[in-house]
Amino acid sequence: MADKTPPKYRSGCPVNISLEVFGDRWSLLIVRDLMVRGFTRFQDFVESGEGIATNMLADRLKKLRRCGIVTGVKDEEDGRRVIYRLTEKGIDLAPVMLELLIWGAQHEDTGAPPAVIAELAKNRKAVLEETRRRWREMDPTPLLPWLSGPRTGRPRGRASRQNEPVLLRRT
Amino acid sequence: MADKTPPKYRSGCPVNISLEVFGDRWSLLIVRDLMVRGFTRFQDFVESGEGIATNMLADRLKKLRRCGIVTGVKDEEDGRRVIYRLTEKGIDLAPVMLELLIWGAQHEDTGAPPAVIAELAKNRKAVLEETRRRWREMDPTPLLPWLSGPRTGRPRGRASRQNEPVLLRRT
Repeated sequence: MADKTPPKYRSGCPVNISLEVFGDRWSLLIVRDLMVRGFTRFQDFVESGEGIATNMLADRLKKLRRCGIVTGVKDEEDGRRVIYRLTEKGIDLAPVMLELLIWGAQHEDTGAPPAVIAELAKNRKAVLEETRRRWREMDPTPLLPWLSGPRTGRPRGRASRQNEPVLLRRT
Repeated sequence: MADKTPPKYRSGCPVNISLEVFGDRWSLLIVRDLMVRGFTRFQDFVESGEGIATNMLADRLKKLRRCGIVTGVKDEEDGRRVIYRLTEKGIDLAPVMLELLIWGAQHEDTGAPPAVIAELAKNRKAVLEETRRRWREMDPTPLLPWLSGPRTGRPRGRASRQNEPVLLRRT
């Protein structure tokens, strides 16, 4: 299913190659939505609240599949529909994603509750293990329920248990 | 010196905001070069081996300064020259950079010696502490000497001590 032609890179530095492979904002947001929001269908990404255009989304999904970060399988209930999933190579991006999340929340005015981010930063290892478990077991519960919708300037809802990562609620 | 107009983001998710702030390949490669290669001058980036055009470089440096990730001060020896440096917010990107480096080296055919990457992955905390120490003390020794030049398909030179990160040579 994946196009196996090896891409040509501009330099051999692993940081550069990582960025050439998925280094644009849309690709990383798609990986984020697969990883922590339990998204699986094309329409999920369209409605993600980031405002991605459908042609851009189709292009990025294709690129992510070609790079072996995402796979697509036919939905058994509806053969016209594709179910997207991260590959092992894709789920291995979890540490990059977690560090982007922590950095953004610490340095910019984001919609993330600061206490939750502090907890994530303190429990990196557990967060990554839980992310991987969900992926392995195809558990669709979103890891970070507050990570949704267009920006309102404030975290959605009150600082209730609903806004906490499921991971933290379990402990 | 920085333009303080707060940028408008498309969504409040910290991952999205991180990517809107510096989420393009060139910005992250500039941060990498400031962080681990000891680069400080415009010309250093031009000669980095990634082939960045000077107008693109000037644009990205301006953007990184506006976001408070990079500062520029006049060179005391040559007033026409600017010395670039990461801010605290900029050096806080070290964990993102390290995870990009490890992921790229583990999943793509890069110029990085695999044994060195394995060492970095095993010693994340020490690597990050050393990166921060260099930044704090303005130590210009490159952290990763093999991280240089255009791609040759193989790590440069033999797998000698010269290709190991300085950090690992000290232990």
